Amino acid sequence: MDSKGNSEKKKDLTCVGKSVRRVDGWPKVLGKAKYTADHSFEGMLFAAVKRADFPHARIKSIDVEGAQLPGVEAIMLEEDIPGNPRFGALNPHQPVIISDIVRYLGDGIALVAAKSEKIAREAAKRIVVSYEELPGLFDPREARKSELSIHPEGNEIVHHVLRKGEVSEGFAAADVVLERDYQTQFQEHAYLEPEAAVAVPQPDGGITVYGSMQHPFSTRRVVARVLGLPLAKVRVIQGELGGGFGGKDESSSIVCARAALLALKTGKPVKLVNTREESFVESYKRHPYYLHYKVGAKKDGTLTAMEIEIVADGGAYASMSTFVTWRSVVQATGPYTVPNVKTDVYAYHTNNTYTGAFRGFGSPQIVYASESLMDELAAELKISPAEIRKKNFYQQGGETATGQTLKHVVSLEPALDAVLAELNKKPLEQNANPVFSRGRGFACSYRGVALGAEGVDATGAVVNLLEDGSAIVSTGVAENGQGLRTVFSQIVSEELGIPLEKIVFLDCDTSSIADGGPSVASRCTIMGGNAVRHACLQLKERLNLSEQPDLQKAIKATLNAGKSLYAFGWHNAPKVSWDEHTGQGDAYFTYVYACQGVEVEVNNQTGETKVLRAVAAHDVGMALNPQQVELQIYGGVTMGAGYGLTEEVILEKGVTKNPNFNGYHIPDSRMIGEIVPIIIENPDAAGPFGAKTIGEPTCELLAPAIANAILQATGARVRTIPATPARVLHAMQKEGAPA
Amino acid sequence: MDSKGNSEKKKDLTCVGKSVRRVDGWPKVLGKAKYTADHSFEGMLFAAVKRADFPHARIKSIDVEGAQLPGVEAIMLEEDIPGNPRFGALNPHQPVIISDIVRYLGDGIALVAAKSEKIAREAAKRIVVSYEELPGLFDPREARKSELSIHPEGNEIVHHVLRKGEVSEGFAAADVVLERDYQTQFQEHAYLEPEAAVAVPQPDGGITVYGSMQHPFSTRRVVARVLGLPLAKVRVIQGELGGGFGGKDESSSIVCARAALLALKTGKPVKLVNTREESFVESYKRHPYYLHYKVGAKKDGTLTAMEIEIVADGGAYASMSTFVTWRSVVQATGPYTVPNVKTDVYAYHTNNTYTGAFRGFGSPQIVYASESLMDELAAELKISPAEIRKKNFYQQGGETATGQTLKHVVSLEPALDAVLAELNKKPLEQNANPVFSRGRGFACSYRGVALGAEGVDATGAVVNLLEDGSAIVSTGVAENGQGLRTVFSQIVSEELGIPLEKIVFLDCDTSSIADGGPSVASRCTIMGGNAVRHACLQLKERLNLSEQPDLQKAIKATLNAGKSLYAFGWHNAPKVSWDEHTGQGDAYFTYVYACQGVEVEVNNQTGETKVLRAVAAHDVGMALNPQQVELQIYGGVTMGAGYGLTEEVILEKGVTKNPNFNGYHIPDSRMIGEIVPIIIENPDAAGPFGAKTIGEPTCELLAPAIANAILQATGARVRTIPATPARVLHAMQKEGAPA
Repeated sequence: MDSKGNSEKKKDLTCVGKSVRRVDGWPKVLGKAKYTADHSFEGMLFAAVKRADFPHARIKSIDVEGAQLPGVEAIMLEEDIPGNPRFGALNPHQPVIISDIVRYLGDGIALVAAKSEKIAREAAKRIVVSYEELPGLFDPREARKSELSIHPEGNEIVHHVLRKGEVSEGFAAADVVLERDYQTQFQEHAYLEPEAAVAVPQPDGGITVYGSMQHPFSTRRVVARVLGLPLAKVRVIQGELGGGFGGKDESSSIVCARAALLALKTGKPVKLVNTREESFVESYKRHPYYLHYKVGAKKDGTLTAMEIEIVADGGAYASMSTFVTWRSVVQATGPYTVPNVKTDVYAYHTNNTYTGAFRGFGSPQIVYASESLMDELAAELKISPAEIRKKNFYQQGGETATGQTLKHVVSLEPALDAVLAELNKKPLEQNANPVFSRGRGFACSYRGVALGAEGVDATGAVVNLLEDGSAIVSTGVAENGQGLRTVFSQIVSEELGIPLEKIVFLDCDTSSIADGGPSVASRCTIMGGNAVRHACLQLKERLNLSEQPDLQKAIKATLNAGKSLYAFGWHNAPKVSWDEHTGQGDAYFTYVYACQGVEVEVNNQTGETKVLRAVAAHDVGMALNPQQVELQIYGGVTMGAGYGLTEEVILEKGVTKNPNFNGYHIPDSRMIGEIVPIIIENPDAAGPFGAKTIGEPTCELLAPAIANAILQATGARVRTIPATPARVLHAMQKEGAPA
Repeated sequence: MDSKGNSEKKKDLTCVGKSVRRVDGWPKVLGKAKYTADHSFEGMLFAAVKRADFPHARIKSIDVEGAQLPGVEAIMLEEDIPGNPRFGALNPHQPVIISDIVRYLGDGIALVAAKSEKIAREAAKRIVVSYEELPGLFDPREARKSELSIHPEGNEIVHHVLRKGEVSEGFAAADVVLERDYQTQFQEHAYLEPEAAVAVPQPDGGITVYGSMQHPFSTRRVVARVLGLPLAKVRVIQGELGGGFGGKDESSSIVCARAALLALKTGKPVKLVNTREESFVESYKRHPYYLHYKVGAKKDGTLTAMEIEIVADGGAYASMSTFVTWRSVVQATGPYTVPNVKTDVYAYHTNNTYTGAFRGFGSPQIVYASESLMDELAAELKISPAEIRKKNFYQQGGETATGQTLKHVVSLEPALDAVLAELNKKPLEQNANPVFSRGRGFACSYRGVALGAEGVDATGAVVNLLEDGSAIVSTGVAENGQGLRTVFSQIVSEELGIPLEKIVFLDCDTSSIADGGPSVASRCTIMGGNAVRHACLQLKERLNLSEQPDLQKAIKATLNAGKSLYAFGWHNAPKVSWDEHTGQGDAYFTYVYACQGVEVEVNNQTGETKVLRAVAAHDVGMALNPQQVELQIYGGVTMGAGYGLTEEVILEKGVTKNPNFNGYHIPDSRMIGEIVPIIIENPDAAGPFGAKTIGEPTCELLAPAIANAILQATGARVRTIPATPARVLHAMQKEGAPA
């Protein structure tokens, strides 16, 4: 662990910076934690959804006659929706249920509420829809050219550009120019808990929704819009969340809105829980990217130009495509100084499952491509992968592809050195069995922290200190299982001197706190942490703790003076900027840096690849809870291994072929050996106690590291992920590698 | 209606000052509003309490053997309480359940939780307690002298004094000196909804209690203390309240604590609902007072001295006796300038049902006595009841009995004149049937607003403005059915220009807002209203509404600037003071003034008295919602009529003889005719939009007005209330009145 100048400061802290146990650990371990599907209310009904039978078709008629089974209390079609049936963050064209044209197999057509789940599902099955099938588009590159338009406004969702210098001059000045194509897949978030909602009608005509989502406030927006209610009459309470990883935004909102529609209609509580298969088909995935990279470099490795074109599959609805691809356009060159850059990122509609936010958010795709490319270029130039990177790494004071000057510590080289030192502690030793080949590889990345120029980035928190010195904390960013409750409680404990056992962290309840933005973009610790701290600082001042350091006495005196011990903290992110015409600007207010390395073993006969060891070095600014940082690394590295090796939602003409975990393989311990986390700390002025980010960067590096390691092991370059046995074998055959 | 200088200001208001419909009216009318007993949770158990069999006894043994019925899941005794089994606002001697000495019949001895209420009650019945009966004290005047001590610290709960001038000199200077004794009764709050609680254990080891109480934060304190939990781990949510009238403080806390104990023990939700009989026996009542008044006056009616001794029955536990009797010592002289005052107010323990807060809070007793006395004195001096009052009324700039200079408008004379004008619009007309005699009477009062020098008086409110221009409001004072939701919503509507339909007022949830003090002392509108307004003013500033008056545009601009639309308002009452040794000080930061008059008809044969017509003039500062003010007057006048005529909990040696509404008579429409409310407005600088208070003063005047009217009707003075037919007949016989 590199603790640099921070070691001094850390010594003075009592709770922050320590690996305290998760404050919400016991209830989870004991099975007491309440997930959405655990909620039950008197007289509750169960819902089911009739979904589309074709990925692209015009609905001619919907016959609900046969669905009127005993126990069915409501069947709803689009025409029964009291509010606006369409929603969407940017383009409000996504239906809650639809009656004219279905655009992918996950589209809902009718909602059923019944006395039991069995009856509801049976009734949904008996709804007969007749269609006129429409030709479909299933490849964004086709959609780009096609005259067939999935939405009236055309197939293009977005086109981001970045223009820096003049690439033609850059390529002219290069000694070597390399062009490569890479391709990435649909990835499933694979959260343990499928989407679920329980909606409870309220006496005042409003509705309360218990649900599982990453941004209860955007769910509130969708539910209110669909129900035609003021926002204030919709209360969304997010309890435990069984995994989100970016996947619980629209997917959750839609489930909540459907339950709420039925609850409002029946006047009874309604529970709707997707099956795993429904979740696979309906919920959005990670965008598949088609990436074309052209890079120019001098003989010594100095990069002179990059030209990048990316086509993303947005699927049936826009969702977060615009934002996901924006992060790609910012970061597409990787953490390297390139004087001339031309990047174009497009997203197009298809009739595939739509795509959206997923841990990494437009970064894993471009890191996979650019870090594969750097190794390919190094090989071409016959210099080492480490050398070419070090030659071109961003530096403190240097400028990014978007023209932003990096003022903070840029720890790329320490991260790389730390990984190589750990990875190469022992020389590579081949398996005695010649069927197996081993190789090592690594990848580096930089990543913008929080939302950046995507939009307003601000968060609130309430710290409610009570007369016995216990405290209730709530924040406008929701705990998603990543450990916010613990880290925020640590901050309160640190600032006010309260033991953790006396701090209670509330579930996110949209009626009790201000919208703090989504639990995405690895922004929660830095944004929410600052807001919590701001609330604490107000209290410290009110308590006059500097003059009366005894907390109990200070509380008593403050209350006796008629002052409140309730404080609302607010944090507004530092200013950022973006020029959409040039792709230049201070895209994010700060960045994190990382390097991950692996040793893999490839079975030359089957193409099967295992990760024997992974080393991950991440600069997190400051680890508020080192153990939680390490847990994020374990999880992210594993997710990255799945991305690189096994995980792929297979869609054939819009039909999901592997809608469950028997066909969709997430990594397990047989596939991944030791994971070694390395925490680098360079406290950032923008973060609470210097903390930045750890959630997402952990999952964006392993795929290229594996690809680079497979090359070393087999001599074969896999340019499409996941590097399934078939793809590895295919690449090996192409390269004439040992079989 | 007297709107004075305020009419100008009122004209500019759009929502405040209007009789808008109650925002929570429909759910109540439609039966959708959820009261505590309406809550139901999966796996919920039902609780019952084994209560004492003697009002004063030492418990020798408790045998729960026979109570172990099938379906019983827990039986708890005092020894099973994990925290501190005793609580109390000042003196923590009140037991949640008790195992050594019972001090009144309402004391609980054992708690049972079972699968059904029937089983729980049957099990409670089968618990066998053996006692050693102890001699009891049932009259506070006896308790004062007795060597028998109910609590180790003695029987005296409190002794308040007020010393002003020198009464001996005042009496020496008097032309007439009169001494009278008055007596008041135990009164039952008679809320529609008996005490109820549902406690739900939480995954983190904490507990959530749904209950019906006036101060959820004091309930939290009791529950946390008894359970041995930090306050933060106890969440109390107060939903609809079916009437409180001061009665839902300890009575509710104890029920909540019992349910919580069983929930914590069983790990299951537990519901506990008192029957009406249990409520009558267990919950505290209004203090019976024994009042001795000695008054001196000049021939022209000018008061020269008052000497007052009051003995209050505090019952088994201290509860709010100290505060209730403090208001009495402040206000005991009535709204009259008396240069020499000596007042002593005592409260003693007895083995009767304990007594505590009740709408009026120590005022109805002393208003009954002092306003009867003023009529008696006027008769003695042969001047009119109006004249003697006008001669002595407090004046703006004058000084109260506690030495406080009244700086605001003192509207006693306008109130009296308004009542007399309305009451005497038609001359008194006797019933043609000589069995009935009619008479008129009136009474005047002043009343300190809010808590005054009782303690810290401060309240918070959150106004959470949402992006669609709807708003969520919550306050630290709880809606008790008195209309806070409506009045506070009106203030938000007024300040921010939001229609009422877009404002949602949250139930009071102790985890989501700061303790705003109890919903008592008619303090909610003035305290909470100021806090709500403070929150709105912060928002107005943030929204820059003065420069951007379009709310939607202002909201958008504010959010885009990364600012929050969540505001926490806080109001700390103006400074007050009190010297407990002299009873001098600025007891309350402002006062209200009122007069009520009645015409009664007495049946000379039965002694039965009816209120034919009541007129009530109240200075409320400013009527934020005139209709709600009128509703308070209707309710308060009716309650005052019950106090004066029919309501009395009859305790014989500590045993409640009439523990239900078949034996305890609250007034109905057969007993009360027309009620004419008159609203007087003199906006007060301390109130939101000038509003002061209306809840309690409405119920403290009718009893003496009736007594004075009965005198006019029959020539008989009733000095003990309620003026039951028997008491009226008895007084008439004593006076030799027509029979």
